[in-house]
Amino acid sequence: MFREKQLLLLPGPTPVPPRILRAMSEPMINHRGPEFKALLKETTAGVKRVMQTENSVFILPSSGTGAMEAAVANFISPGDKVLVVTVGVFGDRFAKIAQTFGADVEKLSYPMGQAADAKAVGDRMRQDKEGAIKAVLITHNETSTGVLNDLEAVRREMGEHPALLIVDAVSGLGAAELKTDGWKLDVVIAGAQKAFMLPPGLAFISVSQKAWAAVAQCRSPRFYWDIMSAQKYLEKGQTPYTPAISLFFGLRESLAMMEDEGLERCFTRHRLLRDMVRGGVKALGLKLLAEDASASPAVTAVKTPPGIEANTVRQLARDKYNVILAGGQQSLENKIFRIGHLGWVQPLDMIAALAAVEMALIAAGADVQPGAAVKEAQTVCIERW
Amino acid sequence: MFREKQLLLLPGPTPVPPRILRAMSEPMINHRGPEFKALLKETTAGVKRVMQTENSVFILPSSGTGAMEAAVANFISPGDKVLVVTVGVFGDRFAKIAQTFGADVEKLSYPMGQAADAKAVGDRMRQDKEGAIKAVLITHNETSTGVLNDLEAVRREMGEHPALLIVDAVSGLGAAELKTDGWKLDVVIAGAQKAFMLPPGLAFISVSQKAWAAVAQCRSPRFYWDIMSAQKYLEKGQTPYTPAISLFFGLRESLAMMEDEGLERCFTRHRLLRDMVRGGVKALGLKLLAEDASASPAVTAVKTPPGIEANTVRQLARDKYNVILAGGQQSLENKIFRIGHLGWVQPLDMIAALAAVEMALIAAGADVQPGAAVKEAQTVCIERW
Repeated sequence: MFREKQLLLLPGPTPVPPRILRAMSEPMINHRGPEFKALLKETTAGVKRVMQTENSVFILPSSGTGAMEAAVANFISPGDKVLVVTVGVFGDRFAKIAQTFGADVEKLSYPMGQAADAKAVGDRMRQDKEGAIKAVLITHNETSTGVLNDLEAVRREMGEHPALLIVDAVSGLGAAELKTDGWKLDVVIAGAQKAFMLPPGLAFISVSQKAWAAVAQCRSPRFYWDIMSAQKYLEKGQTPYTPAISLFFGLRESLAMMEDEGLERCFTRHRLLRDMVRGGVKALGLKLLAEDASASPAVTAVKTPPGIEANTVRQLARDKYNVILAGGQQSLENKIFRIGHLGWVQPLDMIAALAAVEMALIAAGADVQPGAAVKEAQTVCIERW
Repeated sequence: MFREKQLLLLPGPTPVPPRILRAMSEPMINHRGPEFKALLKETTAGVKRVMQTENSVFILPSSGTGAMEAAVANFISPGDKVLVVTVGVFGDRFAKIAQTFGADVEKLSYPMGQAADAKAVGDRMRQDKEGAIKAVLITHNETSTGVLNDLEAVRREMGEHPALLIVDAVSGLGAAELKTDGWKLDVVIAGAQKAFMLPPGLAFISVSQKAWAAVAQCRSPRFYWDIMSAQKYLEKGQTPYTPAISLFFGLRESLAMMEDEGLERCFTRHRLLRDMVRGGVKALGLKLLAEDASASPAVTAVKTPPGIEANTVRQLARDKYNVILAGGQQSLENKIFRIGHLGWVQPLDMIAALAAVEMALIAAGADVQPGAAVKEAQTVCIERW
């Protein structure tokens, strides 16, 4: 088995292009010098473009979860009432972080595989006539289930309610449309090890004018995540503490690649990959966890047939065909496998992945026909690529 | 299109593993110093293992054609009668090089797609009772047609005839069985940009005791290719002139990878890849240039259906699906395309390639069913991998 030929189809980390790896091998520079200043300015501007925002944007040396914590620690004070709209593991994590910081968390939960009901969010906000809810926390793309929430509809339903809308777009940004300014999203966080094609270690956070007002009032303790400090340093072309310099070199390259492809084409590609996978899986007679209407363009969760353990399929795909699939989390453990299709992934990768899934299912004893998924994926690809 | 995701399926250069590229980025060393001495000793021993020989082996800083010239210039003198057994473009090239050096060349030619008839070679040698023929030049794996010659049978048929058996194994070594000592091959040349997975620039040549005797008598002019000089320097742990140092770093890594896989498993993998491709192509109703019995485990030539230009299929495969196929050479130009399956290639690559070929054929107007080739390749893979 050729390790470096592994088809890494997780919903992050995603395959890193050699071009980015090469950029990351540049020698260290002074993070308080003019070269880093230029690099920080250039990459911050690039992330803003992908976030489609004129808001402040900061690049944090952390995983996505770190950015989630930053999104809580800067805007939510102990005792604040927040509504966490959760459709899976990462929505629940957002709630847990808010609770950890002392927020009064109200959860609006949906079963695994379902999207949030924007109307229900609106109903809850309309009930809150006295404006007790300070923030709505919601996931853009729920990685654990492969569900995409309709943020635009949620924002619309919130109407004139003064709560901040804080969005976890860790795995969605760059793969699925997200208009920070167009949809009036106050805080958006994202990770770089997803559609940005970087190794893990950088996260992004955007802050609207309205969110800035909350920062000044926020009583949660924060030092590493303090965006007021980040803002002060950014004005000097620096970060408050040592940045992950190599990842910034990689990010510059990643942004250049995204610029080359164009955001619209990037979204179109991700939707095509999703539909190839979903078409293929349906052709095999397997069930998908998410419905078509709210299916993620970043990751697809597949239920294994009765009697077939998902982890057996994953292990066979890895050991026999060099394809890495993600497993199910919590209640979905061993019930589903997930095919990541975000970042540096092209249509042929999906065909290879589906072929491997077919062969692994057959090896695991499932009654599926080799080639059925591939044929359907090809048909989708021929029509649209 | 992601350039670095290109599926490069030429019969050389072949995809280079990142591990080898990383090794090649090591800093320069003194080619007359102790580090290079150790590197030369280690890599020469490694190539000997792959060549399955105790004969002298030299690593030349050249393409495969350079090694072909070395195989002529060191063993064949102007006026020498040589029999060149040719089954394609590279057999013809061997004849041309011998002619260029003044040899009296007799060609035993076979139509494109056919293997050499060992019996016919034997008949010709048995006719040559006075031993006028000084050498037999033959191709191991004919890259232009995807045909593998049966060298063991040719050697057996040559019986006690004193002629040297000089083998062009440029594209075959490492992909197809070749027993230099076991089959009594006097001179074997090979290239590193094939099964050895290196970028182009290194070639190998092995020299039997019997061949050494010819070197001393050889009147052909040679300086760059002079293996007596190479031998003298090798004893000091050096090369007569500046070696391609980075490629030696890469070769060390390549040999480690081949050692890890094991030669037998490497051959088995190449045969599997071949049979997946051939099964797939047949399932599409397309014709193969070579017959099963002499089919190359390194490259497969496919005839396009009537009315479909091979180069159109290749261009569509490249532009739409990021797959690089080789074209036909000389009389086969635009009549065939060739799928390389040697070196750093795994079963899923063949499935992706066949899917791309299907879709490119459909886009070119051919009447083929998407998925038919993939399904057959999967069936072969499930049985044998």
